[in-house]
Amino acid sequence: MDEKKPLILVVNDDGITAPGINALVSFVKGFGEVIVVAPDKAQSGMGHAITMNRPLRLNKFDNIHGAEAYSCSGTPVDCIKFGTKVIAKNRKIDLVVSGINHGLNSSINVIYSGTMSAAVEGALEGVPSIGFSLDNHSFDADFSACEHIVHTVVQFLLDKPREKRYCLNVNIPNVRKEELNGIKICRQAKAYWNERFVERRDPFGEPYYWLTGDFIYLDEGEDTDVWALKNNYVSVVPTKSDLTDYNAITTLKDGKEFVQ
Amino acid sequence: MDEKKPLILVVNDDGITAPGINALVSFVKGFGEVIVVAPDKAQSGMGHAITMNRPLRLNKFDNIHGAEAYSCSGTPVDCIKFGTKVIAKNRKIDLVVSGINHGLNSSINVIYSGTMSAAVEGALEGVPSIGFSLDNHSFDADFSACEHIVHTVVQFLLDKPREKRYCLNVNIPNVRKEELNGIKICRQAKAYWNERFVERRDPFGEPYYWLTGDFIYLDEGEDTDVWALKNNYVSVVPTKSDLTDYNAITTLKDGKEFVQ
Repeated sequence: MDEKKPLILVVNDDGITAPGINALVSFVKGFGEVIVVAPDKAQSGMGHAITMNRPLRLNKFDNIHGAEAYSCSGTPVDCIKFGTKVIAKNRKIDLVVSGINHGLNSSINVIYSGTMSAAVEGALEGVPSIGFSLDNHSFDADFSACEHIVHTVVQFLLDKPREKRYCLNVNIPNVRKEELNGIKICRQAKAYWNERFVERRDPFGEPYYWLTGDFIYLDEGEDTDVWALKNNYVSVVPTKSDLTDYNAITTLKDGKEFVQ
Repeated sequence: MDEKKPLILVVNDDGITAPGINALVSFVKGFGEVIVVAPDKAQSGMGHAITMNRPLRLNKFDNIHGAEAYSCSGTPVDCIKFGTKVIAKNRKIDLVVSGINHGLNSSINVIYSGTMSAAVEGALEGVPSIGFSLDNHSFDADFSACEHIVHTVVQFLLDKPREKRYCLNVNIPNVRKEELNGIKICRQAKAYWNERFVERRDPFGEPYYWLTGDFIYLDEGEDTDVWALKNNYVSVVPTKSDLTDYNAITTLKDGKEFVQ
């Protein structure tokens, strides 16, 4: 075991002033040295967006529970890049933790989620990474029941050899600690959003639209994150950045579809 | 075979005025009725971002090669939602085509790519979808050699029963038609971007940063999209939205890591 204290990068997508990141810093600060780089405004739904067409700003923020903190004008994925390349410089980040998100990132929400995209980006850079999300969208969400979950999962990854580059999507039911049934390793449940656009008129008579919608759940499996959460388990989905549909490769090759 | 002409939704991430989408509309218009919904400005690197915190605008655009066209103030994924929910209304879209992107979306670029995220969103809505990208970043790229590739892949998906919801990531080398060696079904090559930030000072002395970087290729396989492109093949990677790392599920469960 390395005697050096682990270097932990904390990011989120709700912005640097969100209570969720404040709680997360307080939960992980005992594990090592903590650096915070988070968006200067809410960046929910930003997915894996990066900022290429305009320059970025990085500003020193008040420390958060004693941790060095910076706000960034970009996306959650940009924050990972700033954290690893600009702030940590030549030091190696040992762990990325992202969140705690105000609202779940289970099922298909993982692909829209800035919280989880930041974790996936951490993993791409070779850093074990965890995204934490609580089933409570409100600004005043109570994160206190998340503390022992964060401790358990963080300790687990820090105990692993670095080559085990797990990237974990951790979703936490909004219940009291004694109501939790435990932690379950799951797969991402199949689902999609059925969107609607609410059309309104601006003061000049021109239309504008708000995107809204319903979550359509397509999966009866008991091995999914949605099932776990419904049954008061914390769901842990190991996540990756390879989008290849390997089953479809087999089907397409069997059919010799395109191969000329 | 349904006698009704297929309804095809064309989107991109380079914006509605990009030559790549203009070429794509001209290549697919012979297959059916075409609707275009594209961002009103360049949206490269937007990944799977959706717009939730502010309202969206949708404007009628001049027709493109006779196709009904709209520009949208949002992301490529927002464009898919506008196309299917607002423009097509109760009609079913038969095919989404996204692109032609000015620049490749092979390997890990798929997760940053607005072009491919739009295609993945189409697939989530149950529509067979294809993202096309050409290995030429320039505005003046010559897309003419892509025409027969677009025809081949579009015809292939339109001939399939709708239940076969393939989502294909098609990348095209920037060579003359007679130099192409064919089309290969591939997996996404393992790679990542090693970023740097270029720091500059604004006229007020404050720092700002440009994100830039090098593509680090980690994969010697001959079954990857990067290998195919280097060898003058068109690469076709079937793509999905399930990010679960199933191998890691097995490892984690074997270790009974978290299960309490």
